[in-house]
Amino acid sequence: MKKILIIGAGRSSSDLIRYLLGKAPNSGWKIRIGDKDPSFAAQKLASSPHGEAFFFDVSDEEQRRSEIADADIVISMVPASMHLVVANDCIHFAKNAITPSYVSDEMLELDQKAREKGVLILNEMGVDPGIDHMSAMKIIDSIRSNGGDIQSFESFTGGLIAPESDNNPWNYKITWNPRNVVLAGYGGTARFIRENEAMYIPYQRLFERITEVDVAPLGKFEGYANRDSLKYRKTYGLDNIPTLFRGTLRRPGFCKAWNVLVQTGLTDDSFLLESPSSITWRELTASFVNCSSKDNVEMKLRRMFTIDEDTINRLKWLGIFDDKPVNIEEGTPAMALQQLIEEKWKLGENDNDMLVMWHRFNYYLNGKQHEIQSSLTVLGENRTYTAMSKTVGLPIAIAAGMILEGKITLKGICLPVHPEIYLPVLSGLEQHGVSFVEHHTVVS
Amino acid sequence: MKKILIIGAGRSSSDLIRYLLGKAPNSGWKIRIGDKDPSFAAQKLASSPHGEAFFFDVSDEEQRRSEIADADIVISMVPASMHLVVANDCIHFAKNAITPSYVSDEMLELDQKAREKGVLILNEMGVDPGIDHMSAMKIIDSIRSNGGDIQSFESFTGGLIAPESDNNPWNYKITWNPRNVVLAGYGGTARFIRENEAMYIPYQRLFERITEVDVAPLGKFEGYANRDSLKYRKTYGLDNIPTLFRGTLRRPGFCKAWNVLVQTGLTDDSFLLESPSSITWRELTASFVNCSSKDNVEMKLRRMFTIDEDTINRLKWLGIFDDKPVNIEEGTPAMALQQLIEEKWKLGENDNDMLVMWHRFNYYLNGKQHEIQSSLTVLGENRTYTAMSKTVGLPIAIAAGMILEGKITLKGICLPVHPEIYLPVLSGLEQHGVSFVEHHTVVS
Repeated sequence: MKKILIIGAGRSSSDLIRYLLGKAPNSGWKIRIGDKDPSFAAQKLASSPHGEAFFFDVSDEEQRRSEIADADIVISMVPASMHLVVANDCIHFAKNAITPSYVSDEMLELDQKAREKGVLILNEMGVDPGIDHMSAMKIIDSIRSNGGDIQSFESFTGGLIAPESDNNPWNYKITWNPRNVVLAGYGGTARFIRENEAMYIPYQRLFERITEVDVAPLGKFEGYANRDSLKYRKTYGLDNIPTLFRGTLRRPGFCKAWNVLVQTGLTDDSFLLESPSSITWRELTASFVNCSSKDNVEMKLRRMFTIDEDTINRLKWLGIFDDKPVNIEEGTPAMALQQLIEEKWKLGENDNDMLVMWHRFNYYLNGKQHEIQSSLTVLGENRTYTAMSKTVGLPIAIAAGMILEGKITLKGICLPVHPEIYLPVLSGLEQHGVSFVEHHTVVS
Repeated sequence: MKKILIIGAGRSSSDLIRYLLGKAPNSGWKIRIGDKDPSFAAQKLASSPHGEAFFFDVSDEEQRRSEIADADIVISMVPASMHLVVANDCIHFAKNAITPSYVSDEMLELDQKAREKGVLILNEMGVDPGIDHMSAMKIIDSIRSNGGDIQSFESFTGGLIAPESDNNPWNYKITWNPRNVVLAGYGGTARFIRENEAMYIPYQRLFERITEVDVAPLGKFEGYANRDSLKYRKTYGLDNIPTLFRGTLRRPGFCKAWNVLVQTGLTDDSFLLESPSSITWRELTASFVNCSSKDNVEMKLRRMFTIDEDTINRLKWLGIFDDKPVNIEEGTPAMALQQLIEEKWKLGENDNDMLVMWHRFNYYLNGKQHEIQSSLTVLGENRTYTAMSKTVGLPIAIAAGMILEGKITLKGICLPVHPEIYLPVLSGLEQHGVSFVEHHTVVS
C-alpha cells in the first residue's frame, strides 16, 4: 500500500483526485487529502475506501512533518508561498513531491540537498506552467534532433469559457484565481526577445500590444505578453534563440476594454480607497477620470481614451458606471474591481470552461524555413470537472503514478523539460483527451 | 555652552551650518557635525572655533548613543529610514530633535513616550514638507480666527532652476535627490479631494493631468499632483474641506515630455535590464516602443503617443535616441534614466537654483467669496548656498535656536503646524529673505 498525500485540495483538484482514485484499486494506493476545509475533497472522494480527507493546516509544523514522514509521495497544492516549507520537509524525510507552481529561487537552492537525499521535487507540473513546457520541449527536442535551427518560439495559453457558455460581451468568465485575473501584469514590465533584441512592455502598454492568434476551429483570439519570457531561453535550452514570446489568450476585444480599466487606474492595488463602503461604482469611476458622478462619466471616459462602441458597451455591462454601491468595507481599487468581476464573470451552474494553448515554432532545416503550429483545446465537463481542473490535475496525477512506479528516476529540483517526464506524461494526457493538433508547413 | 549635534551633513546643510555658526558666538553654541564623509561639513565650518566635523556612522549604536547623550539638541539629517533609531535614542536620553523628513507611522507611535520624557521630536521642518505647512497654517488659522469658512486649498512647490541659469529645453536641472526625480509618483496613485469627492490619478495619468500656475513675475508653471493630499485634511485641521490639492511645480512642457518617458516605460524600477552595459540608448528606447534600433525610433515614438515638436525635441536633447552606451553595469530602466538625467540636468558651475512655492485659498467670509494667493520665490546664491539648502536648512536652524532658548516648549512627535512654531520661524525666515507675497481678492 503506497500513500499519496495531497496537501491543499481546492476546486482545481477534482480531476487529480478522480484520476488517482481510479488507479488506486489496481495500484495499491491510498490517497490522503489534507486541507483546512476538507469538505470539497471529501465530496470528491465520495465514500471510496481508497481515499480519505482530513483537516490539515500546512503551517502546523508538527502535523505537516508527521504527515509527510508517513507518505510515499507528496502533492503540494498549497499557495505558492508555502511550497518551500513543504519541499524542505519532503527533502528531510526523503519523500518525492510534485507542485503545479512556478519554481522560486529559494526552491532552486534546495537542488543539491534534494540530490543528496535522492529526492525529486517536480515543479511547474500543471498546465501553465506545466503542459506548456512539456508540449514545447517535445517539439523543440524533436526539431533539434533532426538538426533544425530554431529561430522563434511563441506560446500562448488561456483559461477561457467554452463556446456554448460564452454569453457575455467580454467573452470571458473566471475559471481560476480571480485576484490573479485582476492583477494580470500589474506593476511590472513584460519582457521578451525578438530578432535578438530584448523587448519591454510596461504595464500601461501591456493590453495595447496584442498578437492575433487563430486556433481552428475555435476562431480568433488575442494574446498579451506574460511577465518574463526571457528566462525561458534557459529553461528550454534555447539560450541563443532570436525570438521567444509567451503570452496569455483572450477573445478579441477583451484586451482593448481591459486596457481602459488599466489606464483609468481601476486595477491599482497600491492604496486603500477613501470610504469605499459609502460610494457607488459611478462615483468611483468618476474619481478616476477627473469628473463628478453627476457628469456624463461615460462621455468623459470615451474622450479620455478614444473608446469605440464595443469597448464602452463592455465597460457598461461590467457595471463601472452603475449607481450601485462598491460594496467593500475596505480595499484597493483592484479589490473593488475583483468583487465586480467575480459577480459579472461568474461561471454559471451549467457553464463549461475551456483551456486553449497555442505554440508556433519557426526553424531552418536543410536550407528551408519551416513552421510548426501546435494547439490544444480542452473543454470542461461541468463546473466540477473543469478544463482547468483537468489540465492542472492530470499531469500531476500521471507524474505521481510514474514516480511511485519508479518510471521517473530524476533527482533534485526539476521542471518537466526532460523527455523522461514529458514523453510519458503527454502520452498519458492523450489517453484522457488532452492532445495537441500539429500543423507543419514549409514556409520557403 | 550648548552642544548642537547635526547627524548627516550633505549638500543641503550649507545654510543650516552657516546660520548656526553665525549665532554660535553670542549664543554660546558648539556645533558638532557627524557624517560618514565629514569633509563637506569641515569645509563649511572652515576653521571656526564654534564648529567641529567628525566621522560618524549612524548605524554604529555605541557612537550614536554616546553622541546623542552628550548633545543638547539633535538635528537629524540622515536618510528618512534612519530617523526612527535616532528619535528613539533622543527620547531615551531626553534630548530634543529636529528632522526635515516626513513623519512615519512608527515615529508617531513614539508620541506618548516622548511626552513622558518631556522631549520634542519636530519633524517635517524643511521646505516641502516644512515651510509649506507653516505658511499654509498661518493663513488657515488667520482665516478661521476671522470666522472664514475655507472651501479650497491648493498648494504647489518646485525645486527648479533660476531664470538666469535656465538654458535647456526642459527648463529643469537637478537640485536635490536625482533618484526621487526619476521616481516621482512612480508605482502609486495620487489622491486629492475636489468638491467633496475623492479624486485619484494613477501614475500612468499623473503627468497628463496638470494645473497651470502663474507666479508673478516668474511667469507660468505647471503642477502635477503629489501622492497623497487626503491626509493633509487631518494635518491642517481641515477635515471637512471640500477641495484640497498638493502638487509639484515644473516649467511648462516638462510634464508632457516626462509623460512620454513614463508611458514608454523608461521610468520603470521593477526589473533589471538585459545586459545594459552592451546596449545604446537608441536600442533601449527601441526595446520599449516595439521596434528595432535600426528603425526610425523617433517616428515610432511620435506615432505611439502623438507627440508635438517641442516634446520630441526635449526627448532628443535628453539623449534617449542617441547611439551612446547606456553605461550602467546592472540596473533598472529608472536607474539608467537617472544616470542620463544626472548628466544632462547637472547644475553647472555658475548655475543657481530656485525654489517656488504657491498657495491658493478660497473661503467664504460674511457672505462673500475670498481668494488668497501666496507665493514664495527663493534664489540660490551659488552652488553651495542653494535655494534648496536655504529653504531646508534655515527653518531647522531657526527652530533649533528657539528650542535651545526655551521659546518652543511643545512636547511629543510634532509637525510645525502650531503657531508657537510657525509664527517665529516664518518671521525668522523673513529676516533671511525667505518671505511670501500675498494677494487677497474678494471674488464675489
